[in-house]
Amino acid sequence: MTEGQKMYELCREIFPLNRSITGNAVRETFRILQSKIPDIRFQMHEVESGTKVCDWTVPDEWNCDEAYLEGPDGERIVDMKDSNLHLLGYSLPTDITLPLEEMKEHIYYLKDQPDVFPYVTSYYSPRWGFSMTYRQFENLKPGDYHAVIRSTLEPGSLTYGEILIPGDTEDEIFFSSYTCHPSMADNECSGPSLIVALARYIADMPKRRYSYRLVLAPETIGALTYIDRNLPHMKEHVKAAFNLTCVGDDRTYSIVHSRYADTYADRVLTNVLSHHGKGFDEYPYIKRGSDERQYQAPGVDIPMVCFCRSKYHIYPEYHTSADDLDLISPEGLQGSFDVMVECINLMEYNNKYRTTTLGEPQLGKRGLVPTMSSKETYQQTLALKDLIAYADGTNDLIRISELIEQPVDILIPLVERLLECGLFEAVEE
Amino acid sequence: MTEGQKMYELCREIFPLNRSITGNAVRETFRILQSKIPDIRFQMHEVESGTKVCDWTVPDEWNCDEAYLEGPDGERIVDMKDSNLHLLGYSLPTDITLPLEEMKEHIYYLKDQPDVFPYVTSYYSPRWGFSMTYRQFENLKPGDYHAVIRSTLEPGSLTYGEILIPGDTEDEIFFSSYTCHPSMADNECSGPSLIVALARYIADMPKRRYSYRLVLAPETIGALTYIDRNLPHMKEHVKAAFNLTCVGDDRTYSIVHSRYADTYADRVLTNVLSHHGKGFDEYPYIKRGSDERQYQAPGVDIPMVCFCRSKYHIYPEYHTSADDLDLISPEGLQGSFDVMVECINLMEYNNKYRTTTLGEPQLGKRGLVPTMSSKETYQQTLALKDLIAYADGTNDLIRISELIEQPVDILIPLVERLLECGLFEAVEE
Amino acid sequence: MTEGQKMYELCREIFPLNRSITGNAVRETFRILQSKIPDIRFQMHEVESGTKVCDWTVPDEWNCDEAYLEGPDGERIVDMKDSNLHLLGYSLPTDITLPLEEMKEHIYYLKDQPDVFPYVTSYYSPRWGFSMTYRQFENLKPGDYHAVIRSTLEPGSLTYGEILIPGDTEDEIFFSSYTCHPSMADNECSGPSLIVALARYIADMPKRRYSYRLVLAPETIGALTYIDRNLPHMKEHVKAAFNLTCVGDDRTYSIVHSRYADTYADRVLTNVLSHHGKGFDEYPYIKRGSDERQYQAPGVDIPMVCFCRSKYHIYPEYHTSADDLDLISPEGLQGSFDVMVECINLMEYNNKYRTTTLGEPQLGKRGLVPTMSSKETYQQTLALKDLIAYADGTNDLIRISELIEQPVDILIPLVERLLECGLFEAVEE
Repeated sequence: MTEGQKMYELCREIFPLNRSITGNAVRETFRILQSKIPDIRFQMHEVESGTKVCDWTVPDEWNCDEAYLEGPDGERIVDMKDSNLHLLGYSLPTDITLPLEEMKEHIYYLKDQPDVFPYVTSYYSPRWGFSMTYRQFENLKPGDYHAVIRSTLEPGSLTYGEILIPGDTEDEIFFSSYTCHPSMADNECSGPSLIVALARYIADMPKRRYSYRLVLAPETIGALTYIDRNLPHMKEHVKAAFNLTCVGDDRTYSIVHSRYADTYADRVLTNVLSHHGKGFDEYPYIKRGSDERQYQAPGVDIPMVCFCRSKYHIYPEYHTSADDLDLISPEGLQGSFDVMVECINLMEYNNKYRTTTLGEPQLGKRGLVPTMSSKETYQQTLALKDLIAYADGTNDLIRISELIEQPVDILIPLVERLLECGLFEAVEE
Repeated sequence: MTEGQKMYELCREIFPLNRSITGNAVRETFRILQSKIPDIRFQMHEVESGTKVCDWTVPDEWNCDEAYLEGPDGERIVDMKDSNLHLLGYSLPTDITLPLEEMKEHIYYLKDQPDVFPYVTSYYSPRWGFSMTYRQFENLKPGDYHAVIRSTLEPGSLTYGEILIPGDTEDEIFFSSYTCHPSMADNECSGPSLIVALARYIADMPKRRYSYRLVLAPETIGALTYIDRNLPHMKEHVKAAFNLTCVGDDRTYSIVHSRYADTYADRVLTNVLSHHGKGFDEYPYIKRGSDERQYQAPGVDIPMVCFCRSKYHIYPEYHTSADDLDLISPEGLQGSFDVMVECINLMEYNNKYRTTTLGEPQLGKRGLVPTMSSKETYQQTLALKDLIAYADGTNDLIRISELIEQPVDILIPLVERLLECGLFEAVEE
Repeated sequence: MTEGQKMYELCREIFPLNRSITGNAVRETFRILQSKIPDIRFQMHEVESGTKVCDWTVPDEWNCDEAYLEGPDGERIVDMKDSNLHLLGYSLPTDITLPLEEMKEHIYYLKDQPDVFPYVTSYYSPRWGFSMTYRQFENLKPGDYHAVIRSTLEPGSLTYGEILIPGDTEDEIFFSSYTCHPSMADNECSGPSLIVALARYIADMPKRRYSYRLVLAPETIGALTYIDRNLPHMKEHVKAAFNLTCVGDDRTYSIVHSRYADTYADRVLTNVLSHHGKGFDEYPYIKRGSDERQYQAPGVDIPMVCFCRSKYHIYPEYHTSADDLDLISPEGLQGSFDVMVECINLMEYNNKYRTTTLGEPQLGKRGLVPTMSSKETYQQTLALKDLIAYADGTNDLIRISELIEQPVDILIPLVERLLECGLFEAVEE
């Protein structure tokens, strides 16, 4: 099974759970994720309702197992059994009968996309409601409607988990995604699945220069909680951070840049996507929308970019019932995995190097160039010579890759050979 | 009456005066301008002929009340009574009869624009002459022509005036225009009218962070005189300077940038024009032509840009009899006034700010975002969030405006609310 | 005779010699070059085979006077007498008869350019071979072929020469070209010819601010030898360096930039080519290919650019028998000469200047502007005013030329007049 297929199966498994920013469905999700990587421990955290985190307060815990809306004839108009998205997230417990006109105030739909129904929530304002297609909404007949929501909203706790895989140094590469979205595939079964796949990949690396931290928490309030508890450590150790969301479809790749598009994470991901062979879309920070909003906020300043396939807010299925398991694919997930693995490898090998000879070295006598050249070897020889030409001790591999227009994964094996034969030395910083 | 209408009426009133770089028509112009703002004092200066100013010398004072050219039959070919532009500025006193061929050496016209006559002067080389349309010129019949110019060119003085409206600090915003052009509307009845309107506006501001200085002087020699007398004060206090000329038509807006397009004045005016809704034309300093030539000269280095509607040298009526009261309009003048007022407001409120929370603040609990959103509130909420996202203490409002693509006049009220509720603090510099 | 014609005649004279990276043909080439500038001494150097230079070793000396390939009927298939390019450079001595199929391994041709034959060498791997057109190759009939190469490859020495023309300072402008290419006109009879012409020009300059050094050596191994012996001196003294190659055709001008396109040589040559009236092609350092590879290598860091008409590797005749005396022309060579002379003049006059007046000087009273202006004088007056406007002591003439969009050769005489009348002063650095 490819990594993409494993990820897809994991998405399928966690898709039905009614996740929110708190609640048992989150805990069940973590249980499933943990079962896929038994040798790597998710360190779990529970944060009590009422806890102050940054400018916010952890809300009461919400759980709901049953919710439906009955029509005048007692028929089920919508039922949470069919899709968790039919229920407005964090709906208050309700059992009420109202005439259609009054009930309409609790019904959400999308007039522009009449065949799908929207994902709606109200975490911090007490509300209840249902979501349905506009087709269904416009055909509601007059009469009394019965809303039943068997939810609880009570003091409890917010759940998040993190994995730390140590490396040779305490410098950290940070990945995050979130666990608060119910029953949408790209946003967000794909992110947690990629976190699990990366944890497996990183744990299997023969050596690690960096320590790797992978965090899954509810969006916004979870990120704020994490920042509230860990900011000094993060500021000291995190060298690059990647927020992963909507990484399961197979349309494009996207980067949402950091505040000034100038962090190490921007450089790494931009370089990898530039040489990945397919196009990619770049968005400035004013198009942000996920947890990079917190990690890149003034004063927090974690060097984070956001990585997506189709970007949230942009793709038409976003935050609707159409963001289902048909939208994502093993190939889409595999592509995201490959890009992140390339980022990891790039960071593991990225250094500044200096040539040890004055003028060009004689490559021929060291067997570094073929005596007879072919088209195939030509590209590698060109990359080798250009790599040496810019190895003046001031450029890291990313910069050299940009200058000589060669992907870093072509350069890494060349660097290794040049180090072996003494033509290169690493520059201590 | 709109400010634009008031300005237009003032242009109409000063249009007929035969202004030059010296003379009584300049003094009469100042008398009229002063009468519009009785509570704000023009401080007047007279600088004696022969005074050295920078590399130049104040010339003798020129006055002329009567000048005409008679044809062979005694008919008046041109008469200064019809337009001051018929007389070459600074013409020597003359009463002479010459055959047509010799008289032609004293006649100026525009072959390319045969229906208008040009504005010509000769301040520093002794000359006399008349200006007429090419149509008129080519129909002159042979015979003797009689030139009468009852001018005086004698030791006297150069006149200029300035207004200082003090603010909370001695830092100054500087505006200049000039009073040396006779009987052209855009260039230059519009500039002095705008100076008067701005003086009125500034004096009525409830509070002023900056002091405002508004200077009217003859072009070139007046600016050099002002610099000669005031440079140390200007260098210490002037934060931004705007030269105002050709600000009365309604075609476009123009900025002529400073020497390196990098002063505070460049940033302010560029930002305001970028968000003004209509396009605008940008010119580098090598297209300069008005008093920015002196104020931005090496060693003077006042942070000045030039602001125009249609730029001098560019519009076809420039320096011709077609630059009349039909070329300008209340709407054109109002537009210039509005742009300058926006510049003033921007500078009054421009600061660097820092958010006081870690991560995004919870806007909802402070009533800073609507619980139900509409298209109208969406734009403001977006601006609010982006404003906070870049309030890291390193960006002033102009820079934030550029980064988040929102006009400063949207940002100013948001900043005020954020300061009120303690989410923002100003950064002391 | 124009300089271009003299250069063309010199190319014609050295074209037939069978130059390589070592050997008597190189020495004969220098003898001819020296004969054209009897008053300027080429200082000659001989470097023994086996000498270590940087990462390389000077190879044995190669000489060859006779080489041919006979066909089955004893006819001469190719003969070095017809073109030196028929023989693979550095061919081992050979006298062997082989059947066609085996002989083919020693035959080089260009299938894509079937009517010309390629220039091939094998300096560091022992080989022998012949070059012919593909037309000829595909018509070779079966049978035995007899290869005769009467070459010697024995310990000897590598030959190079240099000219130093001292100036007022020890700061040096450095020119290089090479002497290792046989019987190709653009690459490389043109470069040595231009070196000779520049030596003549420089020696005749009435005064020289800089010292000028002109070096002719074999490509790669010669440049490395030069660097090995002279690097500390070069690092201290060389202000700008120009590698000259393929400077004889009349198609375009080309610059191959330094490693970061930021040296003084980049600025000088880019400025001159920008204002030369014809277009030019710019190449980044990753398109390098001549001795800039050594002089710009990390740690060597001589501020060098490469100057060509049609760039090596790019033009179709490159490294083939079509690079003959018809490809170059007196006009092409003259153009290269003119560009280099403009570079020299620019560097001789390039300084930072400061105006001595506050505000614009009054040009009229100094006769610096005409009282009556014409189109012709307008351009010069504009250049004069813009030159003064940017003479704030921070810009050298190159930068002013860029800012005001005027060629330096227009500015130099204006600077001289401004210095004379005291309006300019040079800024000591």
